[in-house]
Amino acid sequence: MENFEFVSPTHFVFGKAAEEKVGPMLAERGAKKVLLTFGGQSARKSGLIDRVEASLSAAGVEYVELGGVRANPEIGLVREGVAICKEQGIDWVLAVGGGSVIDSAKATALGACYDGDVWDFYETKQDPEGVLPIAVVLTIPAAGSEGSKNSVISNDELGRKTGYGRNEMRPKIAFMNPELTFTLPAYQTAAGITDMYCHLLERFFDDVGNVPVTDNLNMSLMKTIRAEAPRVLVDPENYDARANIMWAGMLCHQGLAGMGRHEDWATHGLEHELSALNTSITHGAGLAVMFPAWMEYVYSENPQRFIQYGAEVFGLVPTGDVDADAYNAIDATRAFFASLGMPTTLDELGVHEEDIEKMIPTLRANKGEVFGSFMKLTMDDAREIYKIALD
Amino acid sequence: MENFEFVSPTHFVFGKAAEEKVGPMLAERGAKKVLLTFGGQSARKSGLIDRVEASLSAAGVEYVELGGVRANPEIGLVREGVAICKEQGIDWVLAVGGGSVIDSAKATALGACYDGDVWDFYETKQDPEGVLPIAVVLTIPAAGSEGSKNSVISNDELGRKTGYGRNEMRPKIAFMNPELTFTLPAYQTAAGITDMYCHLLERFFDDVGNVPVTDNLNMSLMKTIRAEAPRVLVDPENYDARANIMWAGMLCHQGLAGMGRHEDWATHGLEHELSALNTSITHGAGLAVMFPAWMEYVYSENPQRFIQYGAEVFGLVPTGDVDADAYNAIDATRAFFASLGMPTTLDELGVHEEDIEKMIPTLRANKGEVFGSFMKLTMDDAREIYKIALD
Repeated sequence: MENFEFVSPTHFVFGKAAEEKVGPMLAERGAKKVLLTFGGQSARKSGLIDRVEASLSAAGVEYVELGGVRANPEIGLVREGVAICKEQGIDWVLAVGGGSVIDSAKATALGACYDGDVWDFYETKQDPEGVLPIAVVLTIPAAGSEGSKNSVISNDELGRKTGYGRNEMRPKIAFMNPELTFTLPAYQTAAGITDMYCHLLERFFDDVGNVPVTDNLNMSLMKTIRAEAPRVLVDPENYDARANIMWAGMLCHQGLAGMGRHEDWATHGLEHELSALNTSITHGAGLAVMFPAWMEYVYSENPQRFIQYGAEVFGLVPTGDVDADAYNAIDATRAFFASLGMPTTLDELGVHEEDIEKMIPTLRANKGEVFGSFMKLTMDDAREIYKIALD
Repeated sequence: MENFEFVSPTHFVFGKAAEEKVGPMLAERGAKKVLLTFGGQSARKSGLIDRVEASLSAAGVEYVELGGVRANPEIGLVREGVAICKEQGIDWVLAVGGGSVIDSAKATALGACYDGDVWDFYETKQDPEGVLPIAVVLTIPAAGSEGSKNSVISNDELGRKTGYGRNEMRPKIAFMNPELTFTLPAYQTAAGITDMYCHLLERFFDDVGNVPVTDNLNMSLMKTIRAEAPRVLVDPENYDARANIMWAGMLCHQGLAGMGRHEDWATHGLEHELSALNTSITHGAGLAVMFPAWMEYVYSENPQRFIQYGAEVFGLVPTGDVDADAYNAIDATRAFFASLGMPTTLDELGVHEEDIEKMIPTLRANKGEVFGSFMKLTMDDAREIYKIALD
């Protein structure tokens, strides 16, 4: 087991009516004027934004609205938020939404305490000078950003999408009411489930040997997600199923599922280039295509790890044919994503062979010449993995 | 799933040489003068206390020593520590040891910020007025106090042993170096493993239905402990096995293994009376006797829960005979504890039938007339469970 540090100070408020505590809990922590940031109009139409604003007002906390955060959130709106924070003396950032809104809020909270351009952090990975405290009302279980230190931001001008994270960026409070997810469209639910599952895969497959305490915890989450996913898709208003998925999504990316391991994250790197190429590609859908392709390309580095995964998570009984057994685990993974309605090829995402060379330069800029842990990948390896994923 | 809140802000520093970071990390957080508290002389003889003191001195942090914390830590030494804190302007409490030393440190940190007698909190469960920040160098994986909000303190004068916990009492930093546990005697290792396993059982068996995300996480820890326990007993200097046990011990009691559940804690209540009766009874050994007895008495409330546990953790194949299947899970639990060298009867602990009536009044004082969740227990039920445990 590798040495590690773990710190996750987020106060999680989980359950029915959690969002009603926003005002009191922020006021108790000294919030005076909040940047209230969200995505499209669905949170407004559902009445959620109104309820959150009413809760803030009742507690005597002022707020400034900043809507319009898009999927694959862009640095432009982050800069707008930073300017508002500085001009208006904002002391907390409150994100109402899913991973994109939370990631955008994290970047905004970072930029608000920095004199230069907030993109610097994503470019140079320099340490933050400070971060405004962040609170979250989660509406989409997927990215795990409500409990994680990470954020991923796109820069359209540069054609880049890259991540940055520090423990200081973990939300101070996360309000998680599973009822808020009842109305999520099936595709978005499924893409979120794929995303959280892939956060476990990235941590499970690396170049460290078995770490039973972490691996068993990781696979317990995989099993939970596999069992609960069909329940939420068939019965979107099943509170318990939604609650299991919502809490699992946080645990998948908080960090515990990778403690003592190196983790991999090559596939997330490969996927980020897809959504940098075409921002309409949902992250989870891109991962559903790229993970099985990555698995096919790398499994022979350590097929036993795949056999262990297949046995524990999918109940596959090893036949003794190592390659076949590893492949069965890969097939089961692809079939699971397909069962959620996720795509299985780049073709379905509108990405074709001629696009591969467009992605390599930014992949190199984001990940370096060699990336990944389970297998060290070069740009040539990346090309081959994209090719496997084509159709 | 029940509504819940979860906050665990402890900064965990895990791995080889973790204790060398004590001085720098406390200094970074503004510590000036630390109460350094520990148990017997083993930590001194091993050189650990010297290393910790050298680390503090090198970082310019002063310290005052308070050794002699016993197993089942007593309020008398806590009061001594409180007096030192107040007289000497102590600003951090640093515990070097296992659960007893950490629990004593928690109580001391609580009393240092209170004008009255610190036992008040254990008696009335009133909210704290403040808590000095606590750091921990863990030497015995067992109680999970390094990550938990709880503390259990004995009061010899009153013949009481009772718990008190608030999130503010969670340690700010926990230094966890598995190498420090290489020299733990086998009995203490085994009692610690029993204790952490019972923290999972207390959370798994209650009156809430299945909570898959929590239950699977909980049972993943049970499986890890079952597999790693024989490895550390056979090969005490196996770093990875010790590391898995140490990190699992924290996770068993941090809270995640019970989120969304009511939890039970009747058996801990029954055990506390044993060690209040005879302070030489190790908590884990008392639990090893009491948990199977409790299980036998209560299982018929929900035998399916026992069958689920037996199948998942021990791989037991249900026969269809509900009582027999539930009993098999209970027998497997008792056999697991016995395989660690733990006692299976009160007789082995020197507790006999005539002692039962001595324990009932303090049990009533600590737990009330009715306690437990899986089954609501009266004092008569408690008598019966003690009787089952006798021999």
